[in-house]
Amino acid sequence: MADLIPGNAVIGQSGGPTAVINESLVGVVEGLRLYANAGGPGSAIKKVLGMKHGVSGLTKGEFHDLTDINHDRLQLIAKTPSAALGSTRDKPDSAYCERIFEACKKHDIRYFFYIGGNDSSDTCRIVNELSNKAGYELRCFHVPKTVDNDLVENDHTPGFASAARFVAKACMADFLDNISLPGIKINVIMGRHAGFLTAASALARRDDRMKHEGPTTDGPQLIYLPEVAFDLERFTQDVAELYERKGRVHIAVSEGISDAQGNAIAARLIEAGQTDAHGNVQLSGSGALGDALSNHLKRALTPVGGKPPRVRADTFGYVQRCFPDQSSVDQHEARGTGRYAAKLAAQGDLDGSVTIKRVHPIGSGQPYAARYERVNLEQIAAKTRHMPTEFIEGHNNVSRQFLDYCRPLVGELPLFDRL
Amino acid sequence: MADLIPGNAVIGQSGGPTAVINESLVGVVEGLRLYANAGGPGSAIKKVLGMKHGVSGLTKGEFHDLTDINHDRLQLIAKTPSAALGSTRDKPDSAYCERIFEACKKHDIRYFFYIGGNDSSDTCRIVNELSNKAGYELRCFHVPKTVDNDLVENDHTPGFASAARFVAKACMADFLDNISLPGIKINVIMGRHAGFLTAASALARRDDRMKHEGPTTDGPQLIYLPEVAFDLERFTQDVAELYERKGRVHIAVSEGISDAQGNAIAARLIEAGQTDAHGNVQLSGSGALGDALSNHLKRALTPVGGKPPRVRADTFGYVQRCFPDQSSVDQHEARGTGRYAAKLAAQGDLDGSVTIKRVHPIGSGQPYAARYERVNLEQIAAKTRHMPTEFIEGHNNVSRQFLDYCRPLVGELPLFDRL
Repeated sequence: MADLIPGNAVIGQSGGPTAVINESLVGVVEGLRLYANAGGPGSAIKKVLGMKHGVSGLTKGEFHDLTDINHDRLQLIAKTPSAALGSTRDKPDSAYCERIFEACKKHDIRYFFYIGGNDSSDTCRIVNELSNKAGYELRCFHVPKTVDNDLVENDHTPGFASAARFVAKACMADFLDNISLPGIKINVIMGRHAGFLTAASALARRDDRMKHEGPTTDGPQLIYLPEVAFDLERFTQDVAELYERKGRVHIAVSEGISDAQGNAIAARLIEAGQTDAHGNVQLSGSGALGDALSNHLKRALTPVGGKPPRVRADTFGYVQRCFPDQSSVDQHEARGTGRYAAKLAAQGDLDGSVTIKRVHPIGSGQPYAARYERVNLEQIAAKTRHMPTEFIEGHNNVSRQFLDYCRPLVGELPLFDRL
Repeated sequence: MADLIPGNAVIGQSGGPTAVINESLVGVVEGLRLYANAGGPGSAIKKVLGMKHGVSGLTKGEFHDLTDINHDRLQLIAKTPSAALGSTRDKPDSAYCERIFEACKKHDIRYFFYIGGNDSSDTCRIVNELSNKAGYELRCFHVPKTVDNDLVENDHTPGFASAARFVAKACMADFLDNISLPGIKINVIMGRHAGFLTAASALARRDDRMKHEGPTTDGPQLIYLPEVAFDLERFTQDVAELYERKGRVHIAVSEGISDAQGNAIAARLIEAGQTDAHGNVQLSGSGALGDALSNHLKRALTPVGGKPPRVRADTFGYVQRCFPDQSSVDQHEARGTGRYAAKLAAQGDLDGSVTIKRVHPIGSGQPYAARYERVNLEQIAAKTRHMPTEFIEGHNNVSRQFLDYCRPLVGELPLFDRL
């Protein structure tokens, strides 16, 4: 440890919170204590600071001092959903990054950890470049976080598995609700550009868990991802066909579904006057897309037995990203990525982004295992990962490979039975 | 058992499903085996039938035969959310009840159990009257079920506690989300006429669980119940005041909030053209009320620091009534009420509704305990219970007494910490 640059460490949390983002925070704090004796006698790292509301707080000099926070309290914070330090939606441009760098110098920060998505890794990259140019020693680490699971170079990202667990459990229960009181049910799920979370709804299917073979009759029977161009007429046909055959349809739709030209369906339906004109077409924190699709189906579908179809839409909303029923794999890995970043920082002249790699290939039959690996910041920064084609089946389903990929991440799901 | 009328038993499930309605179903089946050896050699009760989709299936002669279903499978079904027999929204009038009674005679039914809310107990009452008039021996039992908790004579009803648990946990996480990325957040919660479920959001407050005294700063800070006339201007003032003071507001709103004249706010806002004209003003399965309130606040509130306030609304939707994270008290009592109904039926000439009574008064300091009690069907039938005034504080809060009432029902909530 003698050769570490003396100074302070700072940790920030950015973007939409998750149910395990505090595991990563605690992982960094623990790692700095473990690998660099941070705050201890003779350690190069004097203080461990938490940015209040990410880089926004950093530039204002607003910190939580985490140096002496006791172990038990850390464990409780780790289990607490949402960003304990406060988060921010700021996406720093280069002028903002200059201010971040100035704040680092001002507060004698030599270790910079930022927990977030691809924008956060881009912030790390720019700040790192500024420090290199200035010849100021600053270790910059990005720790991955996003329920959208859209970071390149990662098998998956902390936060995704817990959100996927919520989506799977909510869809299990909601499908049972749908067969109990039949009708057409649409669930709108988060993920503006990447469909992983919507795809996770397929884990709700009992036949998937019970036999692993054969066609799917369990819900959600139809899954619409942002990666597949959404065609309103084809959607209507899909629903009409199933509704005629079974008298009920259970549908999962990504909030980010878009047409072949890449225009968000939410915006299009709203423009078409099929719902009210919201000030801005926000996708989360609003039921607009679900209500628009629901109204569309009510008009488009032929009444069966003289009765118009019963169509309902729920938008899972913010609760899916922070619901306190975390996947234990997710908790473990979120902590692990934070601790790994601290370990790398304590090893000397390194910067980068921590990534999660799967040890055995999907579907190998080997038990699930993951390892962490450092990649350069520019490999992650500002890039978006989408569902790979091998995870998608047709225009309204996910593949067996996706299920094999996702199942070990979410933890045990309840076993149900039906009459 | 020798003096029991020979014949079959039938069990039905009605109305919106819950996470524990199958516990009650299994309770009746187990009770009939335990107290009347149903289906066994020499038993008066030959068959135990389940109505497919409630009285709708009964009148068509559509049944699941539950007589020989094995014990292990019953236990798994009990833990499965939503109505395993299928449910119905039919509210039988007297002609419909005649058909129900005819179906009972046709299928040699002498024991009639209906699991549902106040409409279901009214169905029981009418069928019971018809059988009395006809001199046909028919034991009629209503087993309580409703997430709305709106049955009179009951301290609370099976289904409520599990839904309340979901609401409390979702609000805990969502409040942490709200302080992490500040703004105005509205959560719309089920309960068209009774505010119990919306009130349960108050269990999310940490200061309530940590110290049990002092003013509330944790969310939800504002709670709007259908029992208190909703005034849009006062609501706007409440929100504006808190927003100015703290820069964030966390709000729980019942889907059933109504003005002083009893008109649903959802309908009024929709009529005022503040949202689109839905075909019908449904309260669940639509984000309309939340979006309307959210749009209203965006327009009405003064921008702070030049920026319009960030307002988001989530509607918890159907997932709150069936989410597979049941309260163990709720599971136990749902099973217990079903078994108790079977026990009473096996005792001879009785009909009625099973109710749950609290053994010790709220706030007595004694550990929570409940007992079951039979009441006459007409005491429950078609009546609606509301939040009593002592559970309500001011126009936007619940009382300490409500929290003492609700807390033991929902089971242990996760312990969180904040910086």
